[in-house]
Amino acid sequence: MRMPEIIRKKQLNKELSPEEIRFFVNGYTHDEIPDYQAAALTMAIWFNGMSTEEIGELTLAMAESGDTVDLSSIKGIKVDKHSSGGVADTTTIAVGPLVAACGGRMAKMSGRGLAHSGGTLDKLESIPGFSVNQDMQRFSEIVNTCGVSIIGQTANLVPADKKLYALRDVTATVDSMPLIAASIMSKKLAAGGDKILLDVKWGSGAFMHELEKAEKLARIMVDIGKHAGKETRAMVTDMNQPLGNAVGNALEVMEAIEILRGDAEGDLKDLIMELSAQILIMGAVHENRDEALKALEQAVSSGAAVERLKQMISLHGGNPAVCDDFSLLPQARKTESITAESAGYITAMQTDDIGTASVMIGAGREKKSDSIDPAVGLWLRKRLGDRVETGDVLADFYVNDTADLKEAADLFKKAVRIDSTRPEEKPLIVRTLS
Amino acid sequence: MRMPEIIRKKQLNKELSPEEIRFFVNGYTHDEIPDYQAAALTMAIWFNGMSTEEIGELTLAMAESGDTVDLSSIKGIKVDKHSSGGVADTTTIAVGPLVAACGGRMAKMSGRGLAHSGGTLDKLESIPGFSVNQDMQRFSEIVNTCGVSIIGQTANLVPADKKLYALRDVTATVDSMPLIAASIMSKKLAAGGDKILLDVKWGSGAFMHELEKAEKLARIMVDIGKHAGKETRAMVTDMNQPLGNAVGNALEVMEAIEILRGDAEGDLKDLIMELSAQILIMGAVHENRDEALKALEQAVSSGAAVERLKQMISLHGGNPAVCDDFSLLPQARKTESITAESAGYITAMQTDDIGTASVMIGAGREKKSDSIDPAVGLWLRKRLGDRVETGDVLADFYVNDTADLKEAADLFKKAVRIDSTRPEEKPLIVRTLS
Repeated sequence: MRMPEIIRKKQLNKELSPEEIRFFVNGYTHDEIPDYQAAALTMAIWFNGMSTEEIGELTLAMAESGDTVDLSSIKGIKVDKHSSGGVADTTTIAVGPLVAACGGRMAKMSGRGLAHSGGTLDKLESIPGFSVNQDMQRFSEIVNTCGVSIIGQTANLVPADKKLYALRDVTATVDSMPLIAASIMSKKLAAGGDKILLDVKWGSGAFMHELEKAEKLARIMVDIGKHAGKETRAMVTDMNQPLGNAVGNALEVMEAIEILRGDAEGDLKDLIMELSAQILIMGAVHENRDEALKALEQAVSSGAAVERLKQMISLHGGNPAVCDDFSLLPQARKTESITAESAGYITAMQTDDIGTASVMIGAGREKKSDSIDPAVGLWLRKRLGDRVETGDVLADFYVNDTADLKEAADLFKKAVRIDSTRPEEKPLIVRTLS
Repeated sequence: MRMPEIIRKKQLNKELSPEEIRFFVNGYTHDEIPDYQAAALTMAIWFNGMSTEEIGELTLAMAESGDTVDLSSIKGIKVDKHSSGGVADTTTIAVGPLVAACGGRMAKMSGRGLAHSGGTLDKLESIPGFSVNQDMQRFSEIVNTCGVSIIGQTANLVPADKKLYALRDVTATVDSMPLIAASIMSKKLAAGGDKILLDVKWGSGAFMHELEKAEKLARIMVDIGKHAGKETRAMVTDMNQPLGNAVGNALEVMEAIEILRGDAEGDLKDLIMELSAQILIMGAVHENRDEALKALEQAVSSGAAVERLKQMISLHGGNPAVCDDFSLLPQARKTESITAESAGYITAMQTDDIGTASVMIGAGREKKSDSIDPAVGLWLRKRLGDRVETGDVLADFYVNDTADLKEAADLFKKAVRIDSTRPEEKPLIVRTLS
């Protein structure tokens, strides 16, 4: 097999065979195929796309390009969960303990991505003492003990994706639907879960700005799961405003704890409950959504949910008392309120800009090497559709270093649009695919 | 300026600015832009093409990427000639002396390409003593003395094309019309001629198998010439059979000499006369084709044309007596006739396979490092449309090493199609563009 012929085939919009796809993925992973041929093929894929069969094979070949995780020492059905990312998406920290409290399992390995505010690992590390670095044996022990553990990836998972993503990033081919889907799903397949639940975001804070594209991506990923023989479901959900109100690491942990304690309502809680219900159904704990939701509400009201979180924190070396006393979490030195400059309804939020504002004050990374300040961030006081009067607080900023505060506040203000008419409400969960 | 944004622009089918094109060409030439970004851009160009303006700028930037030739010490209007290549295209060796005999100039630098049979330089080197390696001063002296000289490229012309062509070759992007045109024309612009005459071939022995594509390529190249402010004309000519009857280095020199002596007629001579007439008109020696052709015929019949060739050979250190005595040229040890296995009309020739057959017996190179046997080749005895009976000689093979003769002969036989009905005649010169 020769790369120029494989490139030519894709260029002419012909279907690549499984052997051709594996020849490329293996050769590229092992540096036998140079970057320039991978770039040419990737660009041809950008133009001509890939069939369901091709995407499935590409994903499998990528998943098998490095180590794969063996979760067989963990009892029960392991449902992995993936969110396509966004602002104030703190679902994982609450879903894990909730599912565990209801008899399910969550053995989750997270990557430490470059994102608006920190990733799940950064959020957990804002809890004093909490360590996300656990070896596979300890990971399995924690899950078998309390039903939930969240750790950082240690293994060399999907090296093909690392190389390919770095290449796409500098050759303008990041926005290729088949390559996005293969990138996400190859990591999920390598991570060893029995089943996969995807939360695909659409909107101003999501990678997919258009609903149609998010739905298409969800469809492709569910089909990849089928191709790989793993039950996969996808929920397409709204990211036209921050999911929760807290944006920032310790702040988001607080909001997740409030939800587990039954002290907070809203979009973030609603999505946490729906995702958890799906996981309980996929994990064969409950037969239907109503039953699952009932059990989940009971786990909250009984205190079982927050108890699971405390247990997980203890087993990871952290201080579980943070769940009762937020002052044990990192605190910012200064609070600054951002107020509305006109009256009306909040009709739109440029959600990615709100994420960027939080990064500017230290809550996230601009480069991989940047450090994060766990204490800082912002707390939304108004959401889409809310009525505001001039001078009403839109958000509180929690800051330590005030150097970039003005610029961040200006960006935030520009990101929130206030108009005279109330906007139509968008559904939080657009659809669920399986 | 950043390469990912330039790639993205071309991907979205937007026009690149002259600055963006120069940023790419300069950066790539100086190894500041990596191969993988060039491969991505090249593939995007393959899909979306380029505007006339973009191609013009690309060609200029490439032409200026290395040395450029200064022909100002040579008197008169220097018309450069380029053929897009084919089998038995010996025009240059005859056109130069003919034009010179009529008062025109031909100062030609040839590359030593990889081609069916040898290139012009290889053909000239089959003349005992002839040296194509002359420095610029001597080159200019020879042209000023006898009106014609043909030498090998010594300068570092168009390094951007060398890099880009090598990349396209391994990324399936050779067949991009704008890139083909820019590659050819950048070398012509750097070679310093005042005007450019292009011979764009179409057919089974040409790079462009379809007439439409050859016409398109010719149009693009003429437009590039205009963009660069150099008068450029293009003739679209037939390459559905070898142009001349001789295929092989010394054999092709013999055929060119026969034509200059007035001893041979046919397609090769017709095209030599038409190309020469164009050059005389472009060089302001004659005002119209009839006048030019008349002068050219007289140069043949008077012996002035062959006399010019002798003079050029002498000035290059070669033995001019070859023009009177072909036995002074390298001779093959063995001749083998290939005969027709059925009767009928020759309706088609797979011309590139005839070229390959000649390469197999040693007349051309498969790899750049291969050496050429100047004596070997084949001589066609029948042409398209000719009536043949079973046993008629189709061609004579002149060989030294007979190891691959059978395979070459078989390839030749398969390349010549004999059918019962006489085929329609194709015009040798389809059109002339300016």
